[in-house]
Amino acid sequence: MKNTFGTAVTLTLFGESHGEGIGCVLDGLAPGMEVDEKVISRALDKRRPAGAISTGRREPDEFRILSGVLNGRATGTPLCILIPNVAQRSSDYAQNRAYRPGHADFTADMKYHGFQDVRGGGHFSGRITAPLVAAGAILRAALEKKGIVIGSHIAAIHGVKDAPFSGSDEELKALENASFPTLSPEAGEKMQEEILFAKQKGDSVGGILETVVKGMPAGVGEPWFDTVEGLLSHAIFSIPAVKGISFGRGFDFACLFGSEANDAFVNEGGEIRTRTNHNGGINGGITNGMPLVFRTVIKPTPTISAEQDTVDGKTLEAVRLSSGGRHDPCIVHRALIVQESVTALVLFDALTARFGTDWFGGK
Amino acid sequence: MKNTFGTAVTLTLFGESHGEGIGCVLDGLAPGMEVDEKVISRALDKRRPAGAISTGRREPDEFRILSGVLNGRATGTPLCILIPNVAQRSSDYAQNRAYRPGHADFTADMKYHGFQDVRGGGHFSGRITAPLVAAGAILRAALEKKGIVIGSHIAAIHGVKDAPFSGSDEELKALENASFPTLSPEAGEKMQEEILFAKQKGDSVGGILETVVKGMPAGVGEPWFDTVEGLLSHAIFSIPAVKGISFGRGFDFACLFGSEANDAFVNEGGEIRTRTNHNGGINGGITNGMPLVFRTVIKPTPTISAEQDTVDGKTLEAVRLSSGGRHDPCIVHRALIVQESVTALVLFDALTARFGTDWFGGK
Amino acid sequence: MKNTFGTAVTLTLFGESHGEGIGCVLDGLAPGMEVDEKVISRALDKRRPAGAISTGRREPDEFRILSGVLNGRATGTPLCILIPNVAQRSSDYAQNRAYRPGHADFTADMKYHGFQDVRGGGHFSGRITAPLVAAGAILRAALEKKGIVIGSHIAAIHGVKDAPFSGSDEELKALENASFPTLSPEAGEKMQEEILFAKQKGDSVGGILETVVKGMPAGVGEPWFDTVEGLLSHAIFSIPAVKGISFGRGFDFACLFGSEANDAFVNEGGEIRTRTNHNGGINGGITNGMPLVFRTVIKPTPTISAEQDTVDGKTLEAVRLSSGGRHDPCIVHRALIVQESVTALVLFDALTARFGTDWFGGK
Amino acid sequence: MKNTFGTAVTLTLFGESHGEGIGCVLDGLAPGMEVDEKVISRALDKRRPAGAISTGRREPDEFRILSGVLNGRATGTPLCILIPNVAQRSSDYAQNRAYRPGHADFTADMKYHGFQDVRGGGHFSGRITAPLVAAGAILRAALEKKGIVIGSHIAAIHGVKDAPFSGSDEELKALENASFPTLSPEAGEKMQEEILFAKQKGDSVGGILETVVKGMPAGVGEPWFDTVEGLLSHAIFSIPAVKGISFGRGFDFACLFGSEANDAFVNEGGEIRTRTNHNGGINGGITNGMPLVFRTVIKPTPTISAEQDTVDGKTLEAVRLSSGGRHDPCIVHRALIVQESVTALVLFDALTARFGTDWFGGK
Repeated sequence: MKNTFGTAVTLTLFGESHGEGIGCVLDGLAPGMEVDEKVISRALDKRRPAGAISTGRREPDEFRILSGVLNGRATGTPLCILIPNVAQRSSDYAQNRAYRPGHADFTADMKYHGFQDVRGGGHFSGRITAPLVAAGAILRAALEKKGIVIGSHIAAIHGVKDAPFSGSDEELKALENASFPTLSPEAGEKMQEEILFAKQKGDSVGGILETVVKGMPAGVGEPWFDTVEGLLSHAIFSIPAVKGISFGRGFDFACLFGSEANDAFVNEGGEIRTRTNHNGGINGGITNGMPLVFRTVIKPTPTISAEQDTVDGKTLEAVRLSSGGRHDPCIVHRALIVQESVTALVLFDALTARFGTDWFGGK
Repeated sequence: MKNTFGTAVTLTLFGESHGEGIGCVLDGLAPGMEVDEKVISRALDKRRPAGAISTGRREPDEFRILSGVLNGRATGTPLCILIPNVAQRSSDYAQNRAYRPGHADFTADMKYHGFQDVRGGGHFSGRITAPLVAAGAILRAALEKKGIVIGSHIAAIHGVKDAPFSGSDEELKALENASFPTLSPEAGEKMQEEILFAKQKGDSVGGILETVVKGMPAGVGEPWFDTVEGLLSHAIFSIPAVKGISFGRGFDFACLFGSEANDAFVNEGGEIRTRTNHNGGINGGITNGMPLVFRTVIKPTPTISAEQDTVDGKTLEAVRLSSGGRHDPCIVHRALIVQESVTALVLFDALTARFGTDWFGGK
Repeated sequence: MKNTFGTAVTLTLFGESHGEGIGCVLDGLAPGMEVDEKVISRALDKRRPAGAISTGRREPDEFRILSGVLNGRATGTPLCILIPNVAQRSSDYAQNRAYRPGHADFTADMKYHGFQDVRGGGHFSGRITAPLVAAGAILRAALEKKGIVIGSHIAAIHGVKDAPFSGSDEELKALENASFPTLSPEAGEKMQEEILFAKQKGDSVGGILETVVKGMPAGVGEPWFDTVEGLLSHAIFSIPAVKGISFGRGFDFACLFGSEANDAFVNEGGEIRTRTNHNGGINGGITNGMPLVFRTVIKPTPTISAEQDTVDGKTLEAVRLSSGGRHDPCIVHRALIVQESVTALVLFDALTARFGTDWFGGK
Repeated sequence: MKNTFGTAVTLTLFGESHGEGIGCVLDGLAPGMEVDEKVISRALDKRRPAGAISTGRREPDEFRILSGVLNGRATGTPLCILIPNVAQRSSDYAQNRAYRPGHADFTADMKYHGFQDVRGGGHFSGRITAPLVAAGAILRAALEKKGIVIGSHIAAIHGVKDAPFSGSDEELKALENASFPTLSPEAGEKMQEEILFAKQKGDSVGGILETVVKGMPAGVGEPWFDTVEGLLSHAIFSIPAVKGISFGRGFDFACLFGSEANDAFVNEGGEIRTRTNHNGGINGGITNGMPLVFRTVIKPTPTISAEQDTVDGKTLEAVRLSSGGRHDPCIVHRALIVQESVTALVLFDALTARFGTDWFGGK
């Protein structure tokens, strides 16, 4: 289904970096759900590059809701968001017929036979995550009304690790308002130094994001194929540069005994919970009511200033490529809001399928 | 879509561990594709427990193809495979109303309200992977006719690591025929010792599987949502106990510079390739013609003999649980063929969508 | 998606007329729904040929539920029904490489390149409707518990028309128990005479079925694409020989004024209803709470004894074909239960999507 | 999947009659397909009301392609078309809280709980067919390059019938350029008189459209569920006011003998064809290479000036309603291009699934 995700609720993305505009259609919303443009703007602000650690390209990301909203509430019909493109500097990319290493230039040629829009990465551009974030902001607000809260921290940048994430309400609140969301301010400082160091070298760095979702009802997800892990990972890998995802203890499970990996069930005042949460809130593909916990790895931004070997897409001859445009030395901190937005989309869809199309509604 | 995966080609799983039988329906096959029952049997043999490192439960896994095959070839209509259940020992599980930690007993109750079949794990049982492997064997044979070869090794068990995987044809051949597929025989020995040690303790261990797919055409996959990483991970998380997946350098990307992470393009005799393969054969969600490389982490088998704290699902009272049945101290080696089968399903579906319904056919 | 229908609830059909068996997988049932084998048997009996007006081929249609049911209730996991084939008389069809006019022999060759099973129509056989009816019986019982009742009459056979259908409870009850469900016994007699006349001539006749669904909640369906008319028609055209469907006044609308076609809304004791029901219970693709009413046309059975011109599929030479096997001179009366079963499937799916996966459940 | 249709190629509709704009996203196009804005404009012109027999509301239908096209060719990424709304006269509808008989006002309230945009019919407005026609124009041009041609005539208006449709190339050409496409000019005159008569009475009339598709390859479609009839009807019922569809001889089959209904196969110079085409180009759900032929019935426009009984949606009290706005006394002739556009969408999708994503491409 290509550029559409979801079953009960679907998101369809469209647009190219240097075309007329980018946007999305969000279908299947519960009628009466609140749609607050300020909430959307705030989410888009978080995705926007800021400060010395980000690209110099500054898009205003002004969006227009073309349909599906009336008097601040979802009508229940398709909601289309359009973000016109304004800051195109095509000359930055005009010469780029050399396949940029780590980018989709070559694979796009193999798929689209050269008919694709290559300017600014075209439909592969990270800019396409802006409408995804706008849509996610709407869904996330509805999830919060149901007591389902999403929070994330930058778990690592280029080997520098943040403090462990307990997922407490205090931590979530602090992260929500942080400009560079780490739990340890010192680690955050050090991470930003790594980013600036890479920038000075004309290089880039990657890192790890960790997301927690609190308040998910137990019993959501399927045993085969549409497991919660499967649904989340399906969508999460759309975030450019994500190359891995793990749940709960993740790859550490490879070093544990079963007796260390299992989460004992306990009765806490009539509610069944687990004493630990090694499995990240999911057993057998289905939520168990504990916080969902997962980590993703974001590879270093492929665009770097340093010269690289590659091949020219027209002549197929070897060339040396050096990118002179404005680039992010790291996108981990900018990907954080995208990851939360994708998470909101996946869970909103699964909950709507489970509880019906009015569950999130204002009825 | 619950227990169905795929768009152009779909696999639907059914059955419970202690019901009348388990099976699957595979739809969308190219008419005329070979279906060799011996190939299916061989794949099922690989999944079957064997030796001291596996469970004592021995199912013969005798399957019957109920439809969709005539004279050893796919008709193109739905192919149904049925594996009757014969070795049920329900008494092993009869008392199990205590929620087994790490299992889906509790989440199944939350989803199915107690109406599910709990005997032997019911529809959550690892046995359901048998029809998946049978289906995968058919698809894999067709992929191989197109020059697309899948191979895997046990990359780690409980901290013991295998030698690095080059993915050479020799390695793939050796792994294909190995009873415990590691590249380093010494590492394999040590891993099996870890498994036996865990077994003696009444405990279990997990590990890491690494899969390589060679020969995939470039240009398969989508930039958003239906990325190759997204499609593979969606399905792979159905393998019981998988808790993480990563592509190429995976979580190591978090420690690399962009200049170390990018793969330089080179022209090798008119064919564009990458000098390295850090990105695991995928750029921007689309295959680049290099080998697909991914790793999964398999958590330790949740069933252990050691006593554990938990809650009784009927009384909601705290109880101590000790599993007396026959169990696998490790399922990593048995999950290997399942992982390859799921991989075959995902790629076969994507290729059929890309090149049409006759591409794999015998026409 | 080929042989699968539905989104929240899916039905997948498999099998060939002269293969090992035919069946289906029904997924997405609400846990705890009753599954009564007697109800299924009763529905299958209605589909089975009986008396002089039907084919001499008599299959027992003994079914086995392989999964998804425990203690007479749906577990919520996939329910597989298998109907083994026993009454194959392949010699009836062995010589049939001449393309039978009106059948799918030629189109199957174009699609499956000759690899399909041609015996008895293979996967195109009307026998495949047996598992559909079995599945529909389960769904229909659940609909009835929610007050949603489906009934049908034979509206016409070869030009002989039944009395008009009011859809009253008395009519529905009478039709439910009738062996040849017409409202007018005289019309029923005359229709059967038409069938017998055609049989004597070695010919066949078609007719019209009319179905009513009472008790559907208002507000189900979508304005575009997934209209109730669109969903029903999508599935209904799978019934072999259906060549048309219309809702409410159907093709008569072409002769009406708007003032005659509109249904005035009235407030009946606080409930909004329409005074007439020309629109067949659907406005703008969405149910309005009035009875759904639709008609289908079933073409004459294509298999006839009279000699016909055709082409041999192997030699491509002109041949004369005369079918000597056992055939139905009319399938309208046998298609009735199939139409009701398909209707149950479509509505059950739409209601589950609307109200969530537990709505039909026994919780 | 609500407002999205298709599997290999998908169309998603959005927008409300009196909102900011309406549009669609078309995904899955073959890269390099021509996209000619003049072709789109011409198709939109055909849908636009014209002359005395149509509404006075005149929208310019100026569209903008926001994405997916570069240098007049499809890039292969999602193509978004936006048609801004300009001619809203909300006062025409402001008072309309009385449920208009025959319209979706009441059912929309049942589904969207009053949160929907009711102005001008909102998302239910016939205006939403404009983007559908725009998308269809692109697909239709690509079908024509493959020799697949779609044509239609107005088969009847309020009982006045057109001459029979042979589907010859001359007929198709004449219909293509006609302002009121009938085969018989006299019938066309008489139909328009019927429309004007209804208009003078403040009433409306319905009719029948007949569509032919020539050049479809044999072997497209599925035996169960995704039959060509099922796919076409699923989408066709989205055209507002369509209440029935039939293929080939349609409801006339109810009066035929099998010997009259079957189409004899003949070998015409090596190509298998049928001597007659009673089955409308489809056997067993699959195309047989003969022209597809189907008819739809369009009910009289529900909006009429004559006073009608209804209920006020707020007070639930009985009221008399008389519509003073600008309306179409008949929409059959305007629905013709919509029907052809939907047909193009369905067939384009099925062909892409069958032959792969590059089949229509410019490669």
